[in-house]
Amino acid sequence: MNSIDIIAMAALLQYLAFGALVGQARGKFGVKAPAVTGSEPFERVYRVQMNTLELLVAFIPALYAAGRYWPAWAVAGVGFIYVVGRLVYRRAYISAPDSRGLGFVLSIGPVFVLIVAALIGALGLRAGA
Amino acid sequence: MNSIDIIAMAALLQYLAFGALVGQARGKFGVKAPAVTGSEPFERVYRVQMNTLELLVAFIPALYAAGRYWPAWAVAGVGFIYVVGRLVYRRAYISAPDSRGLGFVLSIGPVFVLIVAALIGALGLRAGA
Amino acid sequence: MNSIDIIAMAALLQYLAFGALVGQARGKFGVKAPAVTGSEPFERVYRVQMNTLELLVAFIPALYAAGRYWPAWAVAGVGFIYVVGRLVYRRAYISAPDSRGLGFVLSIGPVFVLIVAALIGALGLRAGA
Repeated sequence: MNSIDIIAMAALLQYLAFGALVGQARGKFGVKAPAVTGSEPFERVYRVQMNTLELLVAFIPALYAAGRYWPAWAVAGVGFIYVVGRLVYRRAYISAPDSRGLGFVLSIGPVFVLIVAALIGALGLRAGA
Repeated sequence: MNSIDIIAMAALLQYLAFGALVGQARGKFGVKAPAVTGSEPFERVYRVQMNTLELLVAFIPALYAAGRYWPAWAVAGVGFIYVVGRLVYRRAYISAPDSRGLGFVLSIGPVFVLIVAALIGALGLRAGA
Repeated sequence: MNSIDIIAMAALLQYLAFGALVGQARGKFGVKAPAVTGSEPFERVYRVQMNTLELLVAFIPALYAAGRYWPAWAVAGVGFIYVVGRLVYRRAYISAPDSRGLGFVLSIGPVFVLIVAALIGALGLRAGA
């Protein structure tokens, strides 16, 4: 069992699900492609996907890079917090965009931790390594 | 010859070409940076690039993850369908956004297949593996 | 020391910093989420992050793919130019969007070089390899 691959694929599936919800919201709020504006509730759903995309492009490489230097269970654990954080973020953003702070911190925090962990490993600064 | 790297780089080049076409469309339809709206034909070209970006961030990690568990020719073959699907999608979206369904399925389908294949591998469920 | 991981993580940190500046610009120019338009100076900051995202999704896989075939110092060196190019791009775009050409070339150029280098390696065309 490769826990890092599992977390990475779970994050990809979550992101694609957010994308599917954008498609659904197009119908629900009457926003026809190629438009992405014109309905505030639609824009919330769209911004959740975009913000998840914005974090995902950093999360995936940081996850794998950290995994080259640290135990898989620890790296996958941090990745799991990211996935949960995205769920919290989505729920908050849809109900009230201004309340998205906690979910945002819970998902960008793990990304930072993974990047720093990868840097510590790549720079050879890991104690005992 | 590493067929997975070749397909991955082909997908990146295709995506960068879609991006170059956005730059060209800025001139053609008179949409000056930083604006990305104001001309419907421009927005179609822009949305093709954005949608390709949205899929690419899932496609590349799924391609490499699947490649860790399945034969390269099979993984690269699925990836090839994705690249063709993106061409079909672009052609349809530019001529009539509502006809983009087939191209979309042909490109998101392979992404799903690769994610599921990687998950089966990462969970150790591959028969005979 | 793994110079390719270091450059990759530096590019991710730079990108996240650009994202943080978007958050800051929301406050400064009074653009409340989920809106991303309505203030031209805000849109510049936002477009810098978006354009960096657009390149990053190609840069990271190309960097690692090239690193499988060429010496790490050379691949990391090309990656370093990309990171500097993004700084030049940002500075130019914020002051005058039309002057962004040089920074753009300095960052998309390295991405192309890495993709072509990876393709040469993956196709087995590298002399002496």
